[in-house]
Parts: sequence; structure tokens; C-alpha cells
Amino acid sequence: MSAGAGLRAAVLGTGSWGTAFAAVLADAGCDVALWGRTTATCEEITLKHRNERYLPGVDLPPALRASTDASAVLEGADLVAIAIPSQSVRATLEPLRAAFPAGAVAVSLMKGVELATDRRMSQVVAEALALPDDRVAVVSGPNLAREIAEHQPTATVVASTSPETAALVARACASAYFRPYTNDDVVGVELCGAVKNVIALAVGISQGRGLGYNTMATVITRGLVEITRLGLALGAQPATFPGLAGMGDLMATCASPDSRNHKLGVHLGQGMTLNEALTATGGTAEGVKSSRSVLELAHSVGVEMPITSAVVQVLHEGLPVEDLAPLLLGRPHKAERV
Amino acid sequence: MSAGAGLRAAVLGTGSWGTAFAAVLADAGCDVALWGRTTATCEEITLKHRNERYLPGVDLPPALRASTDASAVLEGADLVAIAIPSQSVRATLEPLRAAFPAGAVAVSLMKGVELATDRRMSQVVAEALALPDDRVAVVSGPNLAREIAEHQPTATVVASTSPETAALVARACASAYFRPYTNDDVVGVELCGAVKNVIALAVGISQGRGLGYNTMATVITRGLVEITRLGLALGAQPATFPGLAGMGDLMATCASPDSRNHKLGVHLGQGMTLNEALTATGGTAEGVKSSRSVLELAHSVGVEMPITSAVVQVLHEGLPVEDLAPLLLGRPHKAERV
Repeated sequence: MSAGAGLRAAVLGTGSWGTAFAAVLADAGCDVALWGRTTATCEEITLKHRNERYLPGVDLPPALRASTDASAVLEGADLVAIAIPSQSVRATLEPLRAAFPAGAVAVSLMKGVELATDRRMSQVVAEALALPDDRVAVVSGPNLAREIAEHQPTATVVASTSPETAALVARACASAYFRPYTNDDVVGVELCGAVKNVIALAVGISQGRGLGYNTMATVITRGLVEITRLGLALGAQPATFPGLAGMGDLMATCASPDSRNHKLGVHLGQGMTLNEALTATGGTAEGVKSSRSVLELAHSVGVEMPITSAVVQVLHEGLPVEDLAPLLLGRPHKAERV
Repeated sequence: MSAGAGLRAAVLGTGSWGTAFAAVLADAGCDVALWGRTTATCEEITLKHRNERYLPGVDLPPALRASTDASAVLEGADLVAIAIPSQSVRATLEPLRAAFPAGAVAVSLMKGVELATDRRMSQVVAEALALPDDRVAVVSGPNLAREIAEHQPTATVVASTSPETAALVARACASAYFRPYTNDDVVGVELCGAVKNVIALAVGISQGRGLGYNTMATVITRGLVEITRLGLALGAQPATFPGLAGMGDLMATCASPDSRNHKLGVHLGQGMTLNEALTATGGTAEGVKSSRSVLELAHSVGVEMPITSAVVQVLHEGLPVEDLAPLLLGRPHKAERV
């Protein structure tokens, strides 16, 4: 029997990750409805089993249906996955609080930090929906949406402070091509998701400068060291960082030429200004916004983040990209320690 | 002043890594001589500052000189770096024991395990030269030789049970483009170097099957988990595995299309037999030999290594490559732990 049989799931958001995760839930046996703002997209998903804007060419499970009526989508759901733009989560969810099903679990698929409050996404979700922590979970890992929608084998992390909540979400999404591992370190998992985009910018810049795999591997490795340092100062668990949500997601993001942060970094490395690079990548990239917040957070707890600091200098303080490389290698003649 | 000024270094082996590391030592300010078996290669290095066979197109430091006379090369050296084929280390070094300079430090640049004895390379070096452990160091990290020879910024790990020995070697190789970090976990560093080739085979096979970055990142991440599990059982230190010699080297090897193990895996994934793939990559790949030894070692200490086991099944036990992917994702519904 399918892992998710008997479960009802709602997914808020019809972007690439919301749509792909809805397909994952459906393939795991859940009864799944999507909520979107655009009637045309909802009808395309329900009637044609396609989302051509975000997942062109991908056939979605025929049982998926989508609607612009949030209350109808939420009704009776056992879990509600949320994949909407980070900075509009609070404003979008607050009006849905009354319609949120009693006893349901919320699953954050977002990565980032709310700029005005420095809150992690699961915190914003819990506050906006007035849920206790133990009814919120986070899904994060090396999860490029398109590859998952093509049923490529993928593993992920389901994190919640409640083992029962994590187990429910894991059951709802497990299938032959999608393998969830549970974890109780919500802080660590979300921090990895937020900072990886800054490191992807650094990797992109160095590749744009023509540097190869040694540099890429060094920047990712030392980048994970500084993410770990920050995470431990904020109470995260050490085991999260070398795991799928830490190293795994960082690696997939830094290796994929389709990652927006990575691509923006390549443009910068090749000599574009930030504005030119933003235009060339078709809008903003999360790491540009979050790099400064991450660095401020690090300073507030007395943690050094040399790569993040170098990226901030290039993005916001006029450091020439050709001066970045030596900064990325960190401090010489030191013992290698977190 | 250059870090290595005043130090004399000998390098045994004129392959790509031996030659590149000799150039690193020379650029750090050491007085460097190389030993090789081929007169033509030695003359090419000394007179033309080139090694066209192994580092085509790369200009070597003019001060580098090479000779087939091992005693002359070794004389007066403060450190002796060794980069010769793993399985011939013992037989090559034993006759040089008498000529090895009193008080000099030996630096192993090799990765792998001696098949007949299951000894790590630093153990083979120490035994063959009759050196105590504290006069042996290991250099390992995301160190693709060609990129280093092109002066791309690179970091590495210098491991020795003796902090003084590690510090000496770090001083001898440190330059603007090459940054050593010291570490006292020789077992962990060498184990990472030996097992990474097995994981690179798994990544190559999955890429040859058309799988993307999620799978790559997952296999590398779960691969590092199983390397860590084995390492801890053998007395290595946890901090080594997410470091440059662990995650860093693994990532560079798995990402580079030039890595022989990775390339061989791609051929296998595309449907070649092992023999066809070996022919296509121009000879053997370290991971083919070591996969079985690694698995035996794991069984002997009661450690599960599902990716290594899957690779052994494909290479040596007739498992079709199309059955590999599900095995690579590990066991579902588990908490994510080392």
C-alpha cells in the first residue's frame, strides 16, 4: 500500500516547488489539492495535468486538482504544505487562519528569513496560523524541483520538534523516488536553507572568474564550516550540517547551473554590476537579500563568517570580484576546525 | 619572505600530482628536486620547465630540477614528498631507505590502501623507510593537480600525529594560491582519500544513467555518512569528515569530469561492461580495486556501507546498473544520523 494512503493534503502555492511537492504527495498516495492565485494555472493543473510556466513538459499526477478557493482546498486536510514567496508568507497566511483545519500539521517548504523580523519561515508560519511548534514541520534537502517532478531519486529531511509530526509528514511524502529522513533540529535545517544561497553566490562568482573544482569544493566546504559555526551558536545540532539539508542542499544548489543565486554569481564573476546581473537572471536572488542579514546575525553572536563577509563586500561594498578569491580560502596556517 | 625559504625538498614521482606539488613547494620558496624513472621527463622538467605528458601546457617554476638519481635528489632534504603508484610504494621506497636523509620528514601524497596488507599509504611509507609515525605527514584535500599547477586558489589538509611535522610541511607548501590547514587525524584523512573513489564511481554511474544534481548531492552526502561511520569505527576523529580532506576532496573528485573513477562510472552507467569502461578510461581506476577491500574492512568492524555495497554489486557481482539508483538512497523512514 502507498505510504500516504488515507491522508488528505493541501498545498498552498503553484510555483515549481509547490507543484512538484504536490505531485510527490500524490505519488505517495495522498489525496492532494493545490491552492493558487491564478485561475488559468489552477485549471491547467486540474484539467491538463500540467504547469507549463513552472514545470514545462512535466506530466503531473492526474488526481491532482487545484483551485483559487483556499477554504475548499484546506477543508479536511491532515497536512498543509506551504510554498509561497518568503516575504509574503505572513500576509498570505493570516487571512487563512480561520479556515486552517483543526489538528492539521503545517509544512514549510520555504527557505529564507523574514526581513522585518529575522524570523525563520517555520516561525512565521506558526505565528501567522497561531499553531504550536509541534504542529509545524520543515522539508529541506537537495531538492531541485524539476528533477523531483521527473521522478529522479531524491532524499530529503523532514524536521519538526515533534517526532509524531515529522513521522506523519514523512509518511505522506515517501515513495520509490522520494525518501524522507526525519530530524528534530528545525533551527539547523532552516539555517542551512537560508545561508546556502550566500555560499552559492560565492561559488558562482569564483566560477565566473574561471576557477575550477578545487575552488568550488573549498568554498562549499569552508562555507559549510561557517554555516555550522553560526548554527551551533544559535542552538542547532552538529549532525544537521553534514546531512542532506546542510551539505546535500548546499551541494545541489552550488552544482546546478539552474540555481538563481549560482547563476547571478557567475554573472558577477564575469564582470557585470549587481544591477546588470539581477536583470540578466530575471529578478532578485534570495542570497542578495539574506547575505547582509546573515552577517549581522553572525556578528550579533560573535561568529566569524569570512565567505559571507566577502560576498557582502562584493555585493554591497564595492569590493572588486578579482579580490574575492584570496578571501574565500580563509585564514592560512590554521588547524582545520569548526 | 616566502613561507618555505631555507627548506630543501625532494619529491619522488614525476606524475601529475608529484610534479604539481613540486611546483607548489618551489612557489612557496623551497629548494626542490624531483626524482623520476624516465630520463626524458627529468630533462624536460629541468631544461624546458615542462611535463607535457602529465601537465600539458603548464609552465613549471624554472628553479625545479629533476633527476633519475634518487640519492642525489634526497641528499640534504628537510622533507621528502612521495607521489608514486599506491601498489608499488613499498617496493620503490625500501631500496631508498639508506639514502633517506637523517631527520627528514616524509610526506605521502598517495591515496589508497596496499592490497596485500590493507595498510594505509602513510603506514606503508613509515614501514618501508623505517620512520617513526611522527616523521610522516599526509597531504590531502580538493586538490586536482592541473588546477593547482595553474595556480588556482586551493586549500588542503596536512595531517600528522606530530604537530611539529604538520607545521613544517604546512610552512613548506604555503603560498598565495595554496593554503594548508593542519590536522592530527591521519587515519581519518587517509580513509577519506581511499573511499572517495568508490563514491565517485557511484556518482558517475548515476550520472551515466541520466540522473541529475539531487541524486549527485544525495549520493555524496550519504557517501560521506558511510565514510564517517567506517572512520569512527576505526578511531578517526569526527571533525575530519566534513573538512577539506573529507567532504572537500570527495566533492572535487565527484564534480570533476576529469576524475578517472567518476568517468569510469559514467561509462558503466551508460551501459558499458567493466572491461569496456576500463579500456575507455585508459586503464584501471583506484575505486574498482578498493571497493571490495573497503567493504571487507566495513564488515570486519560491523559497519553498514550501502553505497559501497551497491558499487561492489555492480562492479563485481553482476547487478544491473538500472537497479543501482534505489540502493543509493539508503533506507527510508529513518532518522538522519551517522
